[in-house]
Amino acid sequence: MSINKNIRNLTKARRNYSVSEIVDGILAGDITILSLAITLVESSRFEDKQLAHQIIDQCLPHSGKSQRIGITGVPGVGKSTFIESFGKYLIEQKGKMVAVLAIDPSSNKNKGSILGDKTRMETLSNLKNAFIRPSPSMGSLGGVSKATRETIILCEAAGFDTILIETVGVGQSEVEVKSMVDFFLLLMLAGAGDELQGIKRGIMEMADLLVINKAEGDNLKKARLARTEYKNALHLFPPSESGWIPKAETCSALEEQNIDLVYNITLQYFDHVQKNGFLLQQRKSQALDWYKKALESEILNRFMRNEKNQLKSKELEELVKAGKKSPFSAVDELLDGY
Amino acid sequence: MSINKNIRNLTKARRNYSVSEIVDGILAGDITILSLAITLVESSRFEDKQLAHQIIDQCLPHSGKSQRIGITGVPGVGKSTFIESFGKYLIEQKGKMVAVLAIDPSSNKNKGSILGDKTRMETLSNLKNAFIRPSPSMGSLGGVSKATRETIILCEAAGFDTILIETVGVGQSEVEVKSMVDFFLLLMLAGAGDELQGIKRGIMEMADLLVINKAEGDNLKKARLARTEYKNALHLFPPSESGWIPKAETCSALEEQNIDLVYNITLQYFDHVQKNGFLLQQRKSQALDWYKKALESEILNRFMRNEKNQLKSKELEELVKAGKKSPFSAVDELLDGY
Repeated sequence: MSINKNIRNLTKARRNYSVSEIVDGILAGDITILSLAITLVESSRFEDKQLAHQIIDQCLPHSGKSQRIGITGVPGVGKSTFIESFGKYLIEQKGKMVAVLAIDPSSNKNKGSILGDKTRMETLSNLKNAFIRPSPSMGSLGGVSKATRETIILCEAAGFDTILIETVGVGQSEVEVKSMVDFFLLLMLAGAGDELQGIKRGIMEMADLLVINKAEGDNLKKARLARTEYKNALHLFPPSESGWIPKAETCSALEEQNIDLVYNITLQYFDHVQKNGFLLQQRKSQALDWYKKALESEILNRFMRNEKNQLKSKELEELVKAGKKSPFSAVDELLDGY
Repeated sequence: MSINKNIRNLTKARRNYSVSEIVDGILAGDITILSLAITLVESSRFEDKQLAHQIIDQCLPHSGKSQRIGITGVPGVGKSTFIESFGKYLIEQKGKMVAVLAIDPSSNKNKGSILGDKTRMETLSNLKNAFIRPSPSMGSLGGVSKATRETIILCEAAGFDTILIETVGVGQSEVEVKSMVDFFLLLMLAGAGDELQGIKRGIMEMADLLVINKAEGDNLKKARLARTEYKNALHLFPPSESGWIPKAETCSALEEQNIDLVYNITLQYFDHVQKNGFLLQQRKSQALDWYKKALESEILNRFMRNEKNQLKSKELEELVKAGKKSPFSAVDELLDGY
């Protein structure tokens, strides 16, 4: 999505459609309208946000019926190839409707985008029941788009029953994605070794399934060995809240091997968490998390929309820049009027 | 730092010292008092924060005289070993006083800490003019401690003239650290290959110096080759704001090779940015950034300290959890009273 295209989309959306027309379009599965709505949701303009909130509120009762799956792994692990194979399998073999939300890490310095450079997931994007949406991560490397939760709701209302959320990088973004999905899949490579243990420890604890990708050709034996090792490691972790015991498998996304196995594990998982009530419980606590984030962002928005606050803050910024006031005393001065 | 030890420290600090005693202790270079003050700064208790702000405000006029150097790189690149060698060199060969702020990525799920498990930087920590402070990253994997800026100020006031800030992981944290340091050093490995390009692109643009570590033994030739490649790649980047052309070098932290070369490059850099005024300009804009972050956090704190807001928010949380209210309409209901 180029910036120009987004602006054209927004102008079009605001001019041509009412909120109820957009909602009706989404519910009818109109992909063009869905895309427009996501662009609105991602906009940082106040008017767009107000519109977006109304759309989300009306879509909410029609949402929640999908399986939300987070997919992560270090760069080079083959996330795109895996999503291509997995998405194709879900659509062609299982009759699913698959939405892929790929976080597009913006280059912070140049406002460029990395994914935008390449055509990705070509096979999948040509399938009828697939919808692929790269979203800018808004300046944070590997971070999650601020609008990902909202985009999930819109896709679900449009009829998508499987939402795959891809994150790039290892770190902060996984924690955020974990708070939005039902199932968390970590792709790994065999032989990446102990050097990554520091990071793996935190991320591995969040995973419901580890998949060692690139289990093909010469790499097959190494991948199987890694699977055994990870399986053993997983047993050392404290039991997860869901009561689910994380699994480790190998696959070859490139050769489309073991994709069915991965799918079957997701089925087992959803069966497990539906029966023990964890799915519902987790979604409730995710809604709460969403509310808290939305509250924070709206408190700040409202404070800064106040013109008096803006002017006073600008004054203080100059004093801080000039070293005449410390950041903390400037903050106190601005807020002590309240 | 165990949690229990932190609590003991805080209790001790509050009981035994006044603000001016703490500030005097810091200015006298008392490491125990410095540690207590950092613990106060990292505390999330309201009373501790108030105390910490006063201490920071009084230390600010005595700060700013150090060279603030951010050091990053993927796990396994040898950050700790590099900091040991570099820190030791600075202290023993150049008579510097070196503070190392290492971000300790907490395991989000278990509230455990990764660095806490290992003894790190043993040689350096035994040197008289070294101060090593691991800080919890507060739940975000690889994230920067919220108190890192404040800790820099305290260390400078205590007389440290070189502050090394280590981040773990690749991603969000680098952007944050970049906004706190003068010089940004990226450690790399030879032969990590194109697979990491996606991440490298964003991070490499921020670096003032790339150092290919582990240039030793069999790896030496590969490291030199990588250096040439990175050097060429750096020329393709748009010129940086500082007017400095990023450099690429090899080193062996383990064998203490080329550490002097790295130091000389930092000297060249500081000379360059002092002469062209960029150092001052960057610090001004960093102070502004600090003010904005402090403002955001204080607006939220004040809103949530209000008991009426807390009660109303608790009520709304229940409705959101029960699916009876959307997050956005709950936010509107809470804030429309304002």
